[in-house]
Amino acid sequence: MSDIEIPESHPRYLSLLTRHRIEEGVEKGITSKQGLIAEGRGEAFDYLLGEETIPSADAAARAAAARLLLAEHPVLSVNGNVAALVPGEMVELADAVGADIEVNLFNRTEERLRAIADHLRDHGASEVKGLTADGRIPGLDHERAKVDADGIGSADVVLVPLEDGDRAEALAAMGKVEIVVDLNPMSRSAQSAAVPIVDNIVRAVPNVTAHARDLSDASREELERIVETFDREAALREAEAAIRGGELA
Amino acid sequence: MSDIEIPESHPRYLSLLTRHRIEEGVEKGITSKQGLIAEGRGEAFDYLLGEETIPSADAAARAAAARLLLAEHPVLSVNGNVAALVPGEMVELADAVGADIEVNLFNRTEERLRAIADHLRDHGASEVKGLTADGRIPGLDHERAKVDADGIGSADVVLVPLEDGDRAEALAAMGKVEIVVDLNPMSRSAQSAAVPIVDNIVRAVPNVTAHARDLSDASREELERIVETFDREAALREAEAAIRGGELA
Repeated sequence: MSDIEIPESHPRYLSLLTRHRIEEGVEKGITSKQGLIAEGRGEAFDYLLGEETIPSADAAARAAAARLLLAEHPVLSVNGNVAALVPGEMVELADAVGADIEVNLFNRTEERLRAIADHLRDHGASEVKGLTADGRIPGLDHERAKVDADGIGSADVVLVPLEDGDRAEALAAMGKVEIVVDLNPMSRSAQSAAVPIVDNIVRAVPNVTAHARDLSDASREELERIVETFDREAALREAEAAIRGGELA
Repeated sequence: MSDIEIPESHPRYLSLLTRHRIEEGVEKGITSKQGLIAEGRGEAFDYLLGEETIPSADAAARAAAARLLLAEHPVLSVNGNVAALVPGEMVELADAVGADIEVNLFNRTEERLRAIADHLRDHGASEVKGLTADGRIPGLDHERAKVDADGIGSADVVLVPLEDGDRAEALAAMGKVEIVVDLNPMSRSAQSAAVPIVDNIVRAVPNVTAHARDLSDASREELERIVETFDREAALREAEAAIRGGELA
């Protein structure tokens, strides 16, 4: 993360970096109007959360890393805002856990799909799925249902950051283990996830990667213990309490 | 408000109308990228507030109407999001209280100024100030400081909805009675206002107009009593409590 000329020690560093990347995303045709509005909603929740990774979000990130390492076929789903905000970080996470990367858009157009795939490749991705679209998620309308059969279609664990509620619920209904990153703990996406990470994606994705690297030599038993001791209900409650109790100023 | 084909009784009517108008604003070059992000922040706070006008916001709207009716030279300030979201409603309020309308942009370009002035005229405004820019607000940098000398420059009461914190503070420091509409009660704009209305602008502006019409025959004493009994500190506290205590789901 060194694409803006501000020291990382600057108190507003992450916020300025986020803004810079979102604007670059608009210029490149990656971030949509809906994406900009969603970014604003996230800013408000992050502000209420104190713009920090709370302990339950860190525990969720560790459980997410364990889930991804245990998976037979993990896939990281990337939409416009994810691509704009954490392109290199998603590629690093995919490398750390051996996951596929698949582009999935709420407002699907070939042009945006290609712009996002190019952007991910510019940040080091070797293979980007999502353009074949030969699989379907049951229960969603046509455009929204499209996935790659050998990507999300056959994944056992999926990371779907900043995901639409309908899609998150439909993926969970397919029996996939779903890891969500969402700043609103009461959103349907967070509520339907096996592992809801209530944190800013700019902090959450590198944090999952750090946990995955830390756990790279862990035994299957150790990873399973981390998965089992993570309490999603408690994590959601703690996130809501932090948002309710945090400083508004 | 009948520019979308949904019945006003629809539970998501205001939310859908808002979305429709913001998107139209983007198409017309009125709403900026920053404006879309700000719209998202507002959505999150409104969601926490329960998407309703709380009693203290209604009291603030009534105090705002009284302030505008008592003013010698009231001015309503309009930026990109205000123009996109409530163009006709701002014109109606200006008519109800005899106020000027002045366009003021955080990111000022001649093109956006003209697009906004045209949009306001399309919604019934006869005169739109803000293009002369022969006055300055002390303490702000050049572009941000520009106002019309015979508009905000000489106003005694200004309504500045969805205003940037620096400008709101600088206007208050000039001694102007400032009415702010902002969904975050702890924002510097809300904190610096004589009358902070913590409400969605789509609900707030028509509500101020309704109070102004209701008070059109009120005596000066009655209006002054309304102004004096309005407690801004209590209103800000109640808004924060509503946001903290509201349903997140």
